[in-house]
Amino acid sequence: MDMLLFSLDRDTSTPLYEQLYEGIKDAIIQQKIAVGEKLPSKRKLSDFLNISQTTIELAYAQLLAEGYIASKPRVGYFVEDIDELPFIEKPINSTPTVQKKRTYKIDFSPGKIDEDSFPFTVWRKYAKELIDLHSKELLQIGDRQGEYELRTQIASYLYQSRGINCTAEQIVIGSGTEQLMPFILRLFDDTNIALENPGYSAIPRNHLEHVAIPVDVDADGLLVDQLEKTEANLVYITPSHQFPTGAVLSAARRAQLLKWAAQKESRYIIEDDYDSEFRYIGKPIPALHSLDQNDKVIYMSTFTKSLMPSLRVAYFVLPPTLLARYNEVFGYYSATVPRFDQHILAHFMKDGHFSKHLNRMRKIYRKKHDKLLSILTRHYPAIKVSGDVAGMHVLIQVPHEKQEHELQQIAIENDISILPISNYLLTPVQLKRPTFLLGFGGIPIDKIEPHLDALMAVWSIDKH
Amino acid sequence: MDMLLFSLDRDTSTPLYEQLYEGIKDAIIQQKIAVGEKLPSKRKLSDFLNISQTTIELAYAQLLAEGYIASKPRVGYFVEDIDELPFIEKPINSTPTVQKKRTYKIDFSPGKIDEDSFPFTVWRKYAKELIDLHSKELLQIGDRQGEYELRTQIASYLYQSRGINCTAEQIVIGSGTEQLMPFILRLFDDTNIALENPGYSAIPRNHLEHVAIPVDVDADGLLVDQLEKTEANLVYITPSHQFPTGAVLSAARRAQLLKWAAQKESRYIIEDDYDSEFRYIGKPIPALHSLDQNDKVIYMSTFTKSLMPSLRVAYFVLPPTLLARYNEVFGYYSATVPRFDQHILAHFMKDGHFSKHLNRMRKIYRKKHDKLLSILTRHYPAIKVSGDVAGMHVLIQVPHEKQEHELQQIAIENDISILPISNYLLTPVQLKRPTFLLGFGGIPIDKIEPHLDALMAVWSIDKH
Repeated sequence: MDMLLFSLDRDTSTPLYEQLYEGIKDAIIQQKIAVGEKLPSKRKLSDFLNISQTTIELAYAQLLAEGYIASKPRVGYFVEDIDELPFIEKPINSTPTVQKKRTYKIDFSPGKIDEDSFPFTVWRKYAKELIDLHSKELLQIGDRQGEYELRTQIASYLYQSRGINCTAEQIVIGSGTEQLMPFILRLFDDTNIALENPGYSAIPRNHLEHVAIPVDVDADGLLVDQLEKTEANLVYITPSHQFPTGAVLSAARRAQLLKWAAQKESRYIIEDDYDSEFRYIGKPIPALHSLDQNDKVIYMSTFTKSLMPSLRVAYFVLPPTLLARYNEVFGYYSATVPRFDQHILAHFMKDGHFSKHLNRMRKIYRKKHDKLLSILTRHYPAIKVSGDVAGMHVLIQVPHEKQEHELQQIAIENDISILPISNYLLTPVQLKRPTFLLGFGGIPIDKIEPHLDALMAVWSIDKH
Repeated sequence: MDMLLFSLDRDTSTPLYEQLYEGIKDAIIQQKIAVGEKLPSKRKLSDFLNISQTTIELAYAQLLAEGYIASKPRVGYFVEDIDELPFIEKPINSTPTVQKKRTYKIDFSPGKIDEDSFPFTVWRKYAKELIDLHSKELLQIGDRQGEYELRTQIASYLYQSRGINCTAEQIVIGSGTEQLMPFILRLFDDTNIALENPGYSAIPRNHLEHVAIPVDVDADGLLVDQLEKTEANLVYITPSHQFPTGAVLSAARRAQLLKWAAQKESRYIIEDDYDSEFRYIGKPIPALHSLDQNDKVIYMSTFTKSLMPSLRVAYFVLPPTLLARYNEVFGYYSATVPRFDQHILAHFMKDGHFSKHLNRMRKIYRKKHDKLLSILTRHYPAIKVSGDVAGMHVLIQVPHEKQEHELQQIAIENDISILPISNYLLTPVQLKRPTFLLGFGGIPIDKIEPHLDALMAVWSIDKH
């Protein structure tokens, strides 16, 4: 071949071998060197360009590795047929369309927690201790069901607080209910799943219609009579505090539901106990799991409400009968929660900080809850409240001629976030009145009245 | 009804209302009180038991909430039909079958990193700064594609190091390749996916046979000719450093593959660039994505090898054309990585520590790589090495009359972990010789020779 024509720049920081590699590569791409053409020998090129043979070797090795040239032993290097491989130097897009999460001046979302009461000092102490040279083995991949230390703490917490008797072996840790739900579903060949309507769906909407059977909810929770008439073999349920209605599954329905599951081998109940820690009258409702004699309940919960949503730690408890199946299906899968975070949480729980935090937060949320209800009762008597005494939101029925989505839109325009119950309806249900979830967890107590007043004002509802 | 017969214990820490609640509940469950029976009025019971009406109200409210009794306004409380609700006090299982992850004295797994060189001090500094009262807003749920700050850093890293031009908006952060793969697949109606054989599978084995089409790999990477004859519309590929063979997809095949994808609207390439940072001769192989003119490549990578496996941070870059679809399908999903960790990583990258760490680690791994190869060449000439010059493992072909799984078993019995290539074969392939992945990332440099000697000794391969 003719000599390659390009100049090497000895004054830049780009190594010479790289300049040579780029030059030859570009020449090949732009077809300045034909396919099959032989490259100059290392010695010849070294003489010509006045650079070391090592530099040329490096450049040729890179071209070889990327397949631009091929080597014939003792003959030389030849240009490969690379079709029309385009190398595009696209300009970097300097004006990205910013898509940051919108925040609102007033936020009644049910998922917000009280951020002022988080024990940062204690948490940081454990974090510091763990991110330490001594825990360098925590850099490697961990147990695929989650760290054993954390699972032990969760098992002990569940026994003491929820009457659930399980071992660490039955627990699987993941990054959230949405991430864990598909895992549970994949354990079954037949996944006709019944979901509460309205309800929380950890299954994507677009996937839902193919797999889910909506079952209605009344003041006593899921209508088990209705469930019995379906083809469902699985049911996803929030018995302690139905989301979003706040209903508690009655004892009669609990018995009926457990009986339903026991009737067929393929039937299972997925109990989501997402915010059972926060009940403001009496004691927590016992978990359905604690009543189950036939290993038919897959218990699921999360630290989202009880600690922080951003930590992304949730878990489920498998009946012993499903453990082998789990190990068979998910042998390949690594736990998704960073190990350091798992150990921080395990230490935090072990030293009693989690129970302490829960007790403290229960009082704080109770105060907010009571305040919210007293304002609604006293000043907005036309608004019907339900689903109270637990959790971090209540339901409000608003007497208004406008539709839910219109009212939501008005709120958004005024920098207020509030979610309508229709967001959680799997099938259209005829509602008497526009109904909303009024979350109070994230609102400072002294802001509850002004925020509520602001919402009512934009909806033109008079304060009494 | 007759008076309830049970005694209250005023000396325990159990509140009186709870004792009353438990007593009545047990009586209902054991059918000592018949269904439909009226409970004594609060006043009457208060007189009889000599406790306050408030205590009784609390107990009744709890029974009501759990559905053991029903209230008829102005008449009283009645026992509900609860079927045969069993409340079991199972004894806690005190001897769990411990299932901790097995560790080995010598570990040649390809997934291990060098844990002695992690910059703990710097990492802890950022962790301390972030777990702070001032970052309390980080407790709430974050952006569902991942934190914008981290996505910006990743975009900038990809531009500088991999020639990839993308914006933060195109990036989705998740907890690992296995967690992200199902996301990508759900973006397509038709998911006939071709996988490299042998190859890494981020899809569970039991699910694989229904969806995956194996395509063979040779010294130039995936056989694109073979791919063209399949019905696949998606292909998952590791072009920079094929896992586990170490092949680099040649320039000709790159062009051919991009052309294949461009031919049909439904075709896409999933490029997994999992350990492109570690190449020990020449410069990194450019990402396939950087050559793509038609928005056909979904680029995917991870911090598993470049930082630590236990952090659980991976990401993919969507072509702009798939963004709308992504938002539609995954509008419900929260990012699975804890926000604090995302911000620690973002700050670490922003201040240049990530590049510094990579440069440092490249040198460390190169030394280990060179050491391993020199020992193999000098002392074990009968062993054929391939897939070298990059990554954290090489392939070795062992001249032995025993089968791969027998050799693996012998190693395990001697407390040595080593993985055979057949673990990564999607369909049986006739291998000339037992072939293993020899990972060196996690082995201290002075242990490489003794560990290798130990392995060869248990396999009865002589040292020369």
